[in-house]
Amino acid sequence: MKPEQLRLYLVTDRPLSLGRDLDWIVAEAVRGGTTMVQLREKEADTRDFVALGLKLKELLTPLGIPLLINDRIDVALAVDADGVHIGQSDMPYAIARRLLGPDRIIGLSVETMDEVAEANALDVDYVAVSPVYGTPTKTDTAEPFGLEGLRKAAALSRHPVVAIGGMNERTAADVFAAGADGIAVVSAICSAPDPCAAARRLLEIASAIDC
Amino acid sequence: MKPEQLRLYLVTDRPLSLGRDLDWIVAEAVRGGTTMVQLREKEADTRDFVALGLKLKELLTPLGIPLLINDRIDVALAVDADGVHIGQSDMPYAIARRLLGPDRIIGLSVETMDEVAEANALDVDYVAVSPVYGTPTKTDTAEPFGLEGLRKAAALSRHPVVAIGGMNERTAADVFAAGADGIAVVSAICSAPDPCAAARRLLEIASAIDC
Repeated sequence: MKPEQLRLYLVTDRPLSLGRDLDWIVAEAVRGGTTMVQLREKEADTRDFVALGLKLKELLTPLGIPLLINDRIDVALAVDADGVHIGQSDMPYAIARRLLGPDRIIGLSVETMDEVAEANALDVDYVAVSPVYGTPTKTDTAEPFGLEGLRKAAALSRHPVVAIGGMNERTAADVFAAGADGIAVVSAICSAPDPCAAARRLLEIASAIDC
Repeated sequence: MKPEQLRLYLVTDRPLSLGRDLDWIVAEAVRGGTTMVQLREKEADTRDFVALGLKLKELLTPLGIPLLINDRIDVALAVDADGVHIGQSDMPYAIARRLLGPDRIIGLSVETMDEVAEANALDVDYVAVSPVYGTPTKTDTAEPFGLEGLRKAAALSRHPVVAIGGMNERTAADVFAAGADGIAVVSAICSAPDPCAAARRLLEIASAIDC
């Protein structure tokens, strides 16, 4: 995985998608420049989860856009996804790596500075600093890092860093300036009236930072 | 898997366990003669699910009692379980078999006579005829087979048959007489004041059928 693939990282959320098909949202987001996709399904049956994963895989692979599966390593293996994203209460990292092999992407959520340091001892492919801002998307999250915390986390981490929690057009520039390699976006794309346009605007902000 | 290992098959259920530790319930049920155990967790974090699976594996393997995991093939692989039990909305059978390899046990729930016939085309290790009776344990189940339906299903199936749904001391004898190789028991053990004694009484009923 190249760190620049984290730049505009879409994390799906069915309840926040306003009844629209997730594969449509992903397709639109990708048209707008999304660089990586995480399929996150907390309520779906395994069969539906796999079916949607296969559909997204078919969409994303020809475009060279990695598809990651949230938590469910069985689903990731079933659909031959590019990797998984795991949290601190998901599969322990060592087991996840054993089941997925050395080549698949594994991203890990870190919710404290201690967890950033611990992740440095693992060969994860990236860490997701979570959350940077408080957010209505997830109600069970840890204390927000804030911009200053993100800056410290990015400096401490030996892995690429993606920021999650409150990522949108107002916050993105500051987050990149603080050292994030990417933003993991949920509602700012999933709930946008036009997910393609929303992704495009976020990508412009992300790309401006480079110049 | 030997068909007689299905004889007294415990399926765990946390809400029905009355706040008692699942590993205690399993240990007691096994003392009472339980022949197979399925760990079913619908709400647990993956990390907790794996931790409990590892604990049960350590308990059951020395006793030669198979441990199956409900639905979650990743958890089954993580704890090196003996197999999985899948339903019609879980991982499609062909993918499950590919991920688990030829040697692990895969049991499949069948909810209609058509599904019994379809399972005959698969190399599943057993089918669970579900439900035989209506039951408060699961509220999303199909139309009950009833004893006569179970008898037809057992005659039709080329696989060993375990009966689930309403299995207890009052129903077990009829169910075995109808041709089931085993009973899959939830509340009659998980909610019993003495799970060991409950298992023992069920096993006596199951064993009397042989004589």
